[in-house]
Amino acid sequence: MNITPEIIGYLAATLTTASFLPQAILTIKTKDTQSLSLGMYTLFTLGVFCWLVYGVYIANEVIVFANIITFILAASILSFKIYNMLTNKE
Amino acid sequence: MNITPEIIGYLAATLTTASFLPQAILTIKTKDTQSLSLGMYTLFTLGVFCWLVYGVYIANEVIVFANIITFILAASILSFKIYNMLTNKE
Repeated sequence: MNITPEIIGYLAATLTTASFLPQAILTIKTKDTQSLSLGMYTLFTLGVFCWLVYGVYIANEVIVFANIITFILAASILSFKIYNMLTNKE
Repeated sequence: MNITPEIIGYLAATLTTASFLPQAILTIKTKDTQSLSLGMYTLFTLGVFCWLVYGVYIANEVIVFANIITFILAASILSFKIYNMLTNKE
């Protein structure tokens, strides 16, 4: 079997997305965002969105795939954080 | 000014790296890794390394640049974590 760049890329995408999953699952389940940093999640969500735009721009399937999933997760966490702040739960 | 894919890519790289910096600085400064997850940092560091290999493979400067910096930071954190575990500080 040849190791193509795509295989390395999808492995990379799987590993970095998987590393982010436990936090995403915990936050979506508990809706508790008290100990999460608004600044960090804002930068991260914007950054992942830019990676997504970049992937579409250069027509790179691996980058688009990796960042769509991470964007949905990061944007969900950020939305919970902002919602909790606006409703004075924090 | 034209917005080239490279500008979007470097913006993406800057944002996602910046979002990771506060944790990296805190850990490198305090060497305290008690509340960090070994599993998460192992997956993340391996994933970033694969992104780096992928970037070199497809000769994409933006991906290489972004992931070299993040890899150095993530690998430092992971090394502190493993060192602290091996020396029974945790």
